[in-house]
Amino acid sequence: MSFKTDRTRVRRLPQRGHYDKNTIYPIIDEALYCHVGINVNDSPAVIPTIHARKNDTLYIHGSAASRLLKSIPKENNICVTITLLDGIVLARSAFHHSLNYRSVVIFGKGDLVNDQNEKWNALKTVSDHLIPGRWEDARQPNQKELDATTVISISLKEASAKIRTGPPSDEEVDYQLPVWAGVLPYTIKKGELIPDPRLPKSINIPDYLI
Amino acid sequence: MSFKTDRTRVRRLPQRGHYDKNTIYPIIDEALYCHVGINVNDSPAVIPTIHARKNDTLYIHGSAASRLLKSIPKENNICVTITLLDGIVLARSAFHHSLNYRSVVIFGKGDLVNDQNEKWNALKTVSDHLIPGRWEDARQPNQKELDATTVISISLKEASAKIRTGPPSDEEVDYQLPVWAGVLPYTIKKGELIPDPRLPKSINIPDYLI
Repeated sequence: MSFKTDRTRVRRLPQRGHYDKNTIYPIIDEALYCHVGINVNDSPAVIPTIHARKNDTLYIHGSAASRLLKSIPKENNICVTITLLDGIVLARSAFHHSLNYRSVVIFGKGDLVNDQNEKWNALKTVSDHLIPGRWEDARQPNQKELDATTVISISLKEASAKIRTGPPSDEEVDYQLPVWAGVLPYTIKKGELIPDPRLPKSINIPDYLI
Repeated sequence: MSFKTDRTRVRRLPQRGHYDKNTIYPIIDEALYCHVGINVNDSPAVIPTIHARKNDTLYIHGSAASRLLKSIPKENNICVTITLLDGIVLARSAFHHSLNYRSVVIFGKGDLVNDQNEKWNALKTVSDHLIPGRWEDARQPNQKELDATTVISISLKEASAKIRTGPPSDEEVDYQLPVWAGVLPYTIKKGELIPDPRLPKSINIPDYLI
């Protein structure tokens, strides 16, 4: 199955475009957050939020009081974009500088998840996405908390990935310039856990956080 | 001066909202890329791109062949969102899990930069933003390359920052639960430079990359 449509087709540098699940899903799953674009009063609004994927469905969630989230099911279309930065590409010419990255652009309609089972499973999916094992350890939501949470599902049907990897591509004549060229990699790193000031000393760090 | 307007006012958790340059500009300057929201045929499109700020102007740039960039000056409004992830907040309850983050949402109109001096300076600003010192070392753009580049300026007038820091905020009754709680910090780290395979051994890493 291909997610390629007229809207998702990568026009600039088409060799960087990908439309298959095997490329797109790992990018979605690696990212800790996404950016959601919504039209509000004829003006685009872009908000960062947490997401998670289960099979061919993307879930985003937030407060039931969020104006933007509430507006999603009323809108025709939303766009969810996920970007992973892998490095700065230093070419010999300023013009050919670039980033190495993996990004996914998803177009779709957002549906409010009303079914309580699906809502519960979606929240577990988001939790498992952030930190596997945490859902079973933390106190799980009560009805009041479930009601205070809005979950939106987006069926994954129309998406593209755009990927750049590797060294710079300079103009042939520029390769003789005495300018350092290559890639400065960037990665997201976990730091040392910071215990809550109110955490009793008797509570150890659980295995899933080590 | 405040960037607070009806559109940028943070409604959810208003204590996290900020509208002053001293808060907003460092977030813009720390981020290596942003997400730009544009309405295209009544559908929002969100694209990641490189940005840089000079005084009260934000610049984004890309290929002159980019359909989305070309459409920006024709649109009424765009939204540029910048997000820095600082950590995962592990509360005792699943419901109070959160992220520590610093984000900025900018609303404005995009103007095509036609003035050749401003265009040149904007590209230098973007280069300096990514890697200070690189512009002077790399081969600078020729006219053909300038013509192949589109630069968009956005006047910074309407923006908000949203910031979450610190430990989880649990329900008072949950503090007695035997669940580890705190923050798992995340940071973006530079890796080891990867030289271009075609780089002569005689070219050393310049000081500005060390």
